[in-house]
Amino acid sequence: MRLDTDPYLARYASRVQGMSASAIRALFALTARPEIVSFAGGNPAVEALDLEAAEAVAAAVIRESGAIALQYGIGQGRPELREQLVAVMAHENVPGHVDDLVVTAGGQQALELIAKCFVDPGDIVIAEGPTYVGGIGALSSHQADVRHVPMDAEGMQVDALEDLLRQLSAQGRRAKFVYTIPNHQNPAGVSLSIDRRHRLAELAEQYDLLVLEDNPYGLLDFAGRLQPSIRQLVPDRVVYVGTVSKTFAPGVRTGWIAAPHPVRDKLVLLREAADLCPATLTQMVVERWLATQPWREQVKRFRGVYQDKAEAMLGALDEHMPGGVTWTRPSGAFYIWMTVPAGIDTSDLLAKAINHRVAYVPGRGFYADGSGGDQLRLCFSQPSPERIVEGVERFGALLHEELELVRAVYGAHAPAAASRPNEGRGAVG
Amino acid sequence: MRLDTDPYLARYASRVQGMSASAIRALFALTARPEIVSFAGGNPAVEALDLEAAEAVAAAVIRESGAIALQYGIGQGRPELREQLVAVMAHENVPGHVDDLVVTAGGQQALELIAKCFVDPGDIVIAEGPTYVGGIGALSSHQADVRHVPMDAEGMQVDALEDLLRQLSAQGRRAKFVYTIPNHQNPAGVSLSIDRRHRLAELAEQYDLLVLEDNPYGLLDFAGRLQPSIRQLVPDRVVYVGTVSKTFAPGVRTGWIAAPHPVRDKLVLLREAADLCPATLTQMVVERWLATQPWREQVKRFRGVYQDKAEAMLGALDEHMPGGVTWTRPSGAFYIWMTVPAGIDTSDLLAKAINHRVAYVPGRGFYADGSGGDQLRLCFSQPSPERIVEGVERFGALLHEELELVRAVYGAHAPAAASRPNEGRGAVG
Repeated sequence: MRLDTDPYLARYASRVQGMSASAIRALFALTARPEIVSFAGGNPAVEALDLEAAEAVAAAVIRESGAIALQYGIGQGRPELREQLVAVMAHENVPGHVDDLVVTAGGQQALELIAKCFVDPGDIVIAEGPTYVGGIGALSSHQADVRHVPMDAEGMQVDALEDLLRQLSAQGRRAKFVYTIPNHQNPAGVSLSIDRRHRLAELAEQYDLLVLEDNPYGLLDFAGRLQPSIRQLVPDRVVYVGTVSKTFAPGVRTGWIAAPHPVRDKLVLLREAADLCPATLTQMVVERWLATQPWREQVKRFRGVYQDKAEAMLGALDEHMPGGVTWTRPSGAFYIWMTVPAGIDTSDLLAKAINHRVAYVPGRGFYADGSGGDQLRLCFSQPSPERIVEGVERFGALLHEELELVRAVYGAHAPAAASRPNEGRGAVG
Repeated sequence: MRLDTDPYLARYASRVQGMSASAIRALFALTARPEIVSFAGGNPAVEALDLEAAEAVAAAVIRESGAIALQYGIGQGRPELREQLVAVMAHENVPGHVDDLVVTAGGQQALELIAKCFVDPGDIVIAEGPTYVGGIGALSSHQADVRHVPMDAEGMQVDALEDLLRQLSAQGRRAKFVYTIPNHQNPAGVSLSIDRRHRLAELAEQYDLLVLEDNPYGLLDFAGRLQPSIRQLVPDRVVYVGTVSKTFAPGVRTGWIAAPHPVRDKLVLLREAADLCPATLTQMVVERWLATQPWREQVKRFRGVYQDKAEAMLGALDEHMPGGVTWTRPSGAFYIWMTVPAGIDTSDLLAKAINHRVAYVPGRGFYADGSGGDQLRLCFSQPSPERIVEGVERFGALLHEELELVRAVYGAHAPAAASRPNEGRGAVG
């Protein structure tokens, strides 16, 4: 929620174009003020954790195995932790074996190591548009040529992906991989439909394509539904990324990659070069949490917390947003993606929003190509339902004012939006 | 000590030339057997820590600040932790301010981020020869052209450094930086003399040179002596790396970089791209350990433990090594660097050593240029003094046998050693 506790905001600040990164950083810093309802940061609601249990777990780890917990470990991560992570994957019907896994410092290090492993400068990587800002960061830092595929309420438009693959093939080019967040995508708040999952798997076979499946939010479906993972459909063609940041806690920086063994071996060497090994202490805290605590119940509690917040936000949006504004309707996790009418630039609007005591993340941070100027992300994971309603009211009032201004300036001839192929509530791209 | 708890051994395995990495990995895996006295791994003696105090610290962190400790933090690291790390630096007379620091996942991530920040493919970086294997790894992964400067009992031969700088200058080339571990160097077990520290600082001024000062072992001088840091002598020309791995525990993966602010800003962005932020839980454990525990006394206890082990090893070496074998005499930390007579290749010898139930790390892993075939590193940080004597006896017996074999094969005409400019006990290069 706040720049001083939220490294994601720092990442957005370094991605958002059209304003200087330092200006955006300064604005985000203001969202730390208590009078501001911030829908900007994506911090999970760790206050809903059983902190007494967490304390007991950490104490027991050092009491029973202190000399191990405080020592170096191996680059791949502890086998005992990997066994627990395989159980988490199994709970989601994602196949995997303890030998397939490399423990990482959260999902971000997973993406960084995968980018380092696969991407040479100029290589094409296909990603959803919009997509996770940290994914764009990892890909861009290795000079990937990121090509976006548009999304709608059913997730990535797989037909558009096929068109792109065909075009590339005709040019004698290939994508290194397709990066997808199939469940409750950040930032779009939509999931890939079952039909499209199967179609994506078929395209992977047909075009000999690697899929990078990033799944931080799969267990946070409000109704507890589970969709088939891409790894389940075409296991040999998928490098899968998981994390405990949203189902346990981000403060332990624990994620993982499940990959075919030749890829896994490279990733272990890259991890060793990056930081030798994961922290043994946090690994053992996570492994003991998963082995001894009712973590599935904890995940259900998180789901309930986020569902209440989502419903509060969706209800308030229906009530307070002016006509012409559209947004997605998430069935899990943290995010709503909003598109505003032509004539409003969401990067420029942020300062006014903060002046109205409400904050969001401008859409440009979620595209590698500078589009998204008429879009923005609302995250409802942290404020209370009451504060969410208050924040949406404020934001609705601001958008009403802005639209009046646009109409006063342009009359009926509002400028066309640059990147808004889909109209209607539920649209994304 | 063991491959399954020691990522350093994995790094050596990927560096040692003349044998396949997988063969070296397999050999190191054998050193985990209890009957083998391993001088290979460089794990600190965390069993000498006050584990009850560590347990209380970890429990208090979650009890008092669980919702913060389990949440994301900022990329630069917690200001409260950075304040404590500044106090550690001050204890060593290393100047620094809380704003100068970037918290890293141990010293290894610090080296990786610095390499990423400064090194373009083909850039020259000057390093001691031999030097830390993880430093070579970080530099090589960014395709640095590593040039070694030889060492002797007083550390890096600064005259040779000056010759190299003059040569480069004559060619119109520059080094991106000089990488040095001035205190109780890994692997050479020697420290840079005071005169040479001043000379290095002068050269930095004269040649407009950046110094990467890596200081994991400064507080582990057996007599508690402190040498002036390079950062103390020329603060604006030094990027300084510290770690709590050897003074508290490596299992929390906590190190730091102190750098001029323009460099610091780049490093924070690189850290965010790498893994968003350091684990808040381990940061708070370290900051509470340093703020509430008698850590200076703990460091003294470590010193005593390592001094006993060093004396045991030096005594046994004096007694059991055949003539022609030379080694350094450390005044702190973990390591002794050994040079064997011509005709013995330390990479080839490792399998025989393990067969004699003793292990070490072959010298080639510590050079970027493949030299070091007649050298090896002995680490005394983990076995007990009794086991150390036992291991040295075994290794002495093996070297006696090997030298007889060499004499039987070559007679008086033993082949010349490739990389051994210094004879006599105390020599390094």
